[in-house]
Amino acid sequence: MTPEAKPSAAGEDARVARTRADVARAALEVLTQEDWDAVTHARVAEKAGYSKTTLYAHWPLKVDLVAMALDAIGELPHHDRTEDLRTDLVAELMLFRTAVKDMRLDRILLAMAQTASVEQMARVREDFNRRGQGFVRARLAEVFDGAQLEAAVSMISGVVACPTIMFGELPDDDVIAAAVDIVLASR
Amino acid sequence: MTPEAKPSAAGEDARVARTRADVARAALEVLTQEDWDAVTHARVAEKAGYSKTTLYAHWPLKVDLVAMALDAIGELPHHDRTEDLRTDLVAELMLFRTAVKDMRLDRILLAMAQTASVEQMARVREDFNRRGQGFVRARLAEVFDGAQLEAAVSMISGVVACPTIMFGELPDDDVIAAAVDIVLASR
Repeated sequence: MTPEAKPSAAGEDARVARTRADVARAALEVLTQEDWDAVTHARVAEKAGYSKTTLYAHWPLKVDLVAMALDAIGELPHHDRTEDLRTDLVAELMLFRTAVKDMRLDRILLAMAQTASVEQMARVREDFNRRGQGFVRARLAEVFDGAQLEAAVSMISGVVACPTIMFGELPDDDVIAAAVDIVLASR
Repeated sequence: MTPEAKPSAAGEDARVARTRADVARAALEVLTQEDWDAVTHARVAEKAGYSKTTLYAHWPLKVDLVAMALDAIGELPHHDRTEDLRTDLVAELMLFRTAVKDMRLDRILLAMAQTASVEQMARVREDFNRRGQGFVRARLAEVFDGAQLEAAVSMISGVVACPTIMFGELPDDDVIAAAVDIVLASR
């Protein structure tokens, strides 16, 4: 393994690791600037400046391209923790809402949904989940556990994610605040 | 307009109305038994027993086929109303969960998500929404209003819809019950 090779690309040489990074970035651009249907080997190859043959050789399936795109997102923006749980949850949901709009996280969520039943995506999904819901889950785990915690995490995430993916709409500030108040009132 | 023509197909003759019904049913079958990517003019035409040319002539876009598929779902199963709000919400969410599994409502939700920003789908989306969330919204409107009502509807729907579309997983009975209890505790 050369020094340039990423840990995630164990066994690949540096050239493949560079190609992987370029293709992953291009796949993410196509997915967020265009849409799910646009993520084809031809389109991603064109964007990345490689041949279709190269892409097919390393990543034969569409889901391979999508998995790389999701990995290429990196860390999501998070709110800095304060002492006030309500403040933190409201601020975190507003950041999530902004990310949906600015980073086109709606198209990312949709790609996750499209591949929800694909076993190969399990690691990518868990990883994205950790990056996306980690802050909310950690904060809610201070006051809930078990089924209540699972329900609270789904509900809090759902107040932004559901209208986004179902209706292409984002919740108002007062709907976000109401959702946090509903969950916290049940403590 | 002949007596056979559906009110929804005003101006179309009976033959087109029949073709529409056949194609809509075929599109729904392809969407639920296969998936979003399978909904092509070629596949739906083959399933419905018409030529691709006929399909393209009447419904030139993929979104036309998807809109017809969503209309073809008809009424969704709902719980019979009792006097107890908690019982009704828990039972309704369990029916929703069953429909995700048996009717492959997950693939329907995904098709909704794929077309969330398509203006042409607005009517279909609202209609599906009414059929899907109508019962929960009406029951919650007895105890909430304004932003609280919107948040409660998103959160209650989200506890089933979110894990389904994001992770291909359905919530346990105790997570559903916990979600209903969280929402009702805030009254």
